[in-house]
Amino acid sequence: MEYFSGHLGKLAEELASLPGIGAKSAGRLAYHIIGLPEEKVQRLANSIMAAKSNVKYCKECFMLTDAETCPICKDAARDHCTIMVVENTRDLGAYEKTGKYHGVYHVLHGAISPMLGIGPADIKLKELMERLRGDVDEVIIATNSSLEGETTAMYISKLIKPAGIKVSRIASGVPVGGDLEYIDEVTLLRALEGRVQI
Amino acid sequence: MEYFSGHLGKLAEELASLPGIGAKSAGRLAYHIIGLPEEKVQRLANSIMAAKSNVKYCKECFMLTDAETCPICKDAARDHCTIMVVENTRDLGAYEKTGKYHGVYHVLHGAISPMLGIGPADIKLKELMERLRGDVDEVIIATNSSLEGETTAMYISKLIKPAGIKVSRIASGVPVGGDLEYIDEVTLLRALEGRVQI
Repeated sequence: MEYFSGHLGKLAEELASLPGIGAKSAGRLAYHIIGLPEEKVQRLANSIMAAKSNVKYCKECFMLTDAETCPICKDAARDHCTIMVVENTRDLGAYEKTGKYHGVYHVLHGAISPMLGIGPADIKLKELMERLRGDVDEVIIATNSSLEGETTAMYISKLIKPAGIKVSRIASGVPVGGDLEYIDEVTLLRALEGRVQI
Repeated sequence: MEYFSGHLGKLAEELASLPGIGAKSAGRLAYHIIGLPEEKVQRLANSIMAAKSNVKYCKECFMLTDAETCPICKDAARDHCTIMVVENTRDLGAYEKTGKYHGVYHVLHGAISPMLGIGPADIKLKELMERLRGDVDEVIIATNSSLEGETTAMYISKLIKPAGIKVSRIASGVPVGGDLEYIDEVTLLRALEGRVQI
């Protein structure tokens, strides 16, 4: 894309560096932003800076929140003896949306990936081990069903088991509503292995 | 998507209001922005404000540029007697990328659309008519091949023809490399009507 304005080109370049925004949509977005009313643009720029400066990690579970301790960790009605381990705050949000999980969480902020050079020390694993010194009955590992997620799950499970704490992994199988015909073989085999009696 | 930070939710909401960004990608982008280094976030916010405050219309052709007059209108090597009329600066950029058009442009900033209540007075049409008082040989109408674009082309053509200036419309037909099997009937008929002797 050619730009006849350095400022416009610079904005498109910044936008294109964000994930999921290609060069073409970055250009379209840049032109759209130029066309917006001044106060709307100001609001967008401000919300970016405000989010960056004010959002921090909860000191208990490390999810992204505005306060020192997040609303979930503060909630006395939740079961603080069950900890669900997730890779990031988005995954936490996905489980929270189900409205059926009443325990607390622990956000790793990543997964172990030898390929990307991310080791156990690069994610919030030490912090998880510290939490386990308290009163914990079960750790549910809900990392993604990817190579990195599985590796992380295995690693955590081996780390925790000796302490005598129950460790579980969320089930892997055919998604509800999924058509068997379109599901990959690995998932089909996982679903078969994990079959439950009815 | 649930957010446990008001600032994060606000940012996601602002991002979701941009075209082509749904609620889910807005959330993903918001989390990504939070995770960026401070100076990168500052640069993004600054580029938004800088583009909004510094980009203006070229006083000749009304394309978006940084100076009073754009580089194309300033270029003495270009043919200032041929004006290509486009809907917006993005379309101008598309033609400019071909590198084969040596005339100048006129950006309408929209197209006539009775459905959306956009009339001839809402686009830069009066400004085009003013430019035609000067030394102009040909006006090439390169509005989109949509209902609005065609309506605008017809309207401009009827307006200009009485002045004795040559008016042309870019050809409509099968795109180069396009497979006839997958092209809609209207385009196929247009291509037939517009056939040229070889």
